[in-house]
Amino acid sequence: MAQVYFTPGPAELYPTVSQHIKTALDEHIGSISHRSAAFRKIYQHTDEQLRTLLNIPATHAILFTGSATEIWERMIQNCVEFESFHCINGSFSQKFYDTANDLKKFTHRFEKPLGQGFDYEDFVKVTDGTAAKGEDNNGKVKIPDYVELVCLTANETSTGVQMRGVDINKLKRSYRSKLFCVDMVSSAPYHSLDFEEVDSAFFSVQKSFGLPAGLGVWIASEKCLAKAEQLREKDLSIGSYHSLPSLWKNYKNFETPETPNVWNIYLLGKVAEDMNRIGVEAIRKETDAKAKKIYDFLEKTEGYEPYVKNPEHRSPTVAVANTTEPSKQLIERLKTQGMILGSGYGKAKETQVRIANFPAVSMEQVETLLQAMKPV
Amino acid sequence: MAQVYFTPGPAELYPTVSQHIKTALDEHIGSISHRSAAFRKIYQHTDEQLRTLLNIPATHAILFTGSATEIWERMIQNCVEFESFHCINGSFSQKFYDTANDLKKFTHRFEKPLGQGFDYEDFVKVTDGTAAKGEDNNGKVKIPDYVELVCLTANETSTGVQMRGVDINKLKRSYRSKLFCVDMVSSAPYHSLDFEEVDSAFFSVQKSFGLPAGLGVWIASEKCLAKAEQLREKDLSIGSYHSLPSLWKNYKNFETPETPNVWNIYLLGKVAEDMNRIGVEAIRKETDAKAKKIYDFLEKTEGYEPYVKNPEHRSPTVAVANTTEPSKQLIERLKTQGMILGSGYGKAKETQVRIANFPAVSMEQVETLLQAMKPV
Repeated sequence: MAQVYFTPGPAELYPTVSQHIKTALDEHIGSISHRSAAFRKIYQHTDEQLRTLLNIPATHAILFTGSATEIWERMIQNCVEFESFHCINGSFSQKFYDTANDLKKFTHRFEKPLGQGFDYEDFVKVTDGTAAKGEDNNGKVKIPDYVELVCLTANETSTGVQMRGVDINKLKRSYRSKLFCVDMVSSAPYHSLDFEEVDSAFFSVQKSFGLPAGLGVWIASEKCLAKAEQLREKDLSIGSYHSLPSLWKNYKNFETPETPNVWNIYLLGKVAEDMNRIGVEAIRKETDAKAKKIYDFLEKTEGYEPYVKNPEHRSPTVAVANTTEPSKQLIERLKTQGMILGSGYGKAKETQVRIANFPAVSMEQVETLLQAMKPV
Repeated sequence: MAQVYFTPGPAELYPTVSQHIKTALDEHIGSISHRSAAFRKIYQHTDEQLRTLLNIPATHAILFTGSATEIWERMIQNCVEFESFHCINGSFSQKFYDTANDLKKFTHRFEKPLGQGFDYEDFVKVTDGTAAKGEDNNGKVKIPDYVELVCLTANETSTGVQMRGVDINKLKRSYRSKLFCVDMVSSAPYHSLDFEEVDSAFFSVQKSFGLPAGLGVWIASEKCLAKAEQLREKDLSIGSYHSLPSLWKNYKNFETPETPNVWNIYLLGKVAEDMNRIGVEAIRKETDAKAKKIYDFLEKTEGYEPYVKNPEHRSPTVAVANTTEPSKQLIERLKTQGMILGSGYGKAKETQVRIANFPAVSMEQVETLLQAMKPV
């Protein structure tokens, strides 16, 4: 039976993927050497397409790992000697924080209740090098002086809360001396980050890019590399094959330290190319239009409400809905009609559903879904 | 043009893979949740098929990583507090050693020249707990008392040298108090290891299993887990999401800490099932028969010789040949006939070729290759 996945990852495959997979089989992509010119061409192509799509400058490398989860670890391992700072409002931002603790760093947390989000206005603005010590902060949060890395989550997949790109960019500008890393796992390429400022960001391919899982994409700047090299010079361990210097050295030749997921690197380049053909602005507008449909529906339809109250914090790519119809029943009901919804995350499993609004699903498919979600 | 890859990884896809990929597309394997019953069933199936194929007892878990390279790191990170011991005779055994150094361990190396291998007879036999200090070791090597982990490479892919399974098993029996980890990246399922003794082994899927790259398979025993837990109790960092306790806890439920390469886990289970249908002993015999053809050819044919002199050390799965015809020319010549050979590794690039003899290539294909390799 034909099925459409509105799950927040793994998700619906991008419409062109099955054709690209057939081409990959014909072109022996699964057999070519990762030390061959053929592979380097694939890596370069994917790099160029992502660079265009996400507006990434030459100061930043595009590196591959096994998952976005791996990047939490590599980022902390390579860019924090002592202290990291985390904005936490759900399971995935919490896990980034947990990772830093597992790696024995001194961690700071700024937490908000589930369903709430972070804005630029939540923070004390500091001028570089000028501490705001002893000042009256009017209840605003100051990122402590000794923090080396600020970890933000652009899209908290567990609760459907976004931190808007504009707020992320402004926050970085007021804390320029610190490295900033943005988890955009379930929002890229929607979020428009200013990579002239933002030092690092990452995502996985089974969300908005609509690919099978098994590849993490790590965007990292020369400043991140320099930090990793500093730690290494101090004889601290920054990992082995996937340390930033090791990844970067290979990257300069469009290679990877290990045999990577060549297959997915190839597919990612092809899908990014397809997206560039549409244009990232058109994709963002289409995402906004579909998101509006979804949230309007949730606000106006008996039995539903958007979980996130503040419209500015509502994720355009993962909408979370409170549902009076038990979510299990709703999910089963839609499944019989060929539409797969995500369940609520963790404790919200019974009372919420998550609707992924990735580029792989069309406005028409969203409309069909909403029609089917109407109370019976 | 139809091509056959005799490259030592990535390699020729197993003949059934393209059909399994089509089924995976039909069954939405790229979209299903990694927290669903459907995924747990896939993991369990792959686990069961590998357990049968490699004769793995219930004391050992089968865990997934992004690559075999990652497992070098995870093994050292989780199972070595201070000291590891490495048998080194090529680039890949060297890299396992380098990884331990990157992680700041105290490393011991027993090195042999490229092209030579290790036997049980190279080592002093010690009875558990009885040090052989001060004894005349007759030139044999004693693994030092404080070593916690012994790292062996069953198949040195760079030089085509094997350490026979029987020697690995005997060596472990004479050093029972130490953990043993065997890199069987390019030999599984050929090497028959005694997992009642051997604590850990690992491989990647783009070699003998004939899959696209992007998945490492880590077999680890309860003893390895206990060691990792000991280190954690001492407040040492054993990594984060891919620490052995984290992987193991998820494994008990047939899940993974991160969103894994679901696609490849599915394909691996299918290929292992196909292999079990043939039977691992039949596959080993077929590998031996094809290897005999290859080495006989190299010994008897003008312009070639086997690089590895000692027949017992010659890898059945990756044969390395010295060639008088410049290897680049030979490789180009065969490529025009649709057959892709591996070049020599590193410094041997110009003077050697590597011929992978994995289950994906048939006796008939090997014969066609050897026919084509004859001097022109």
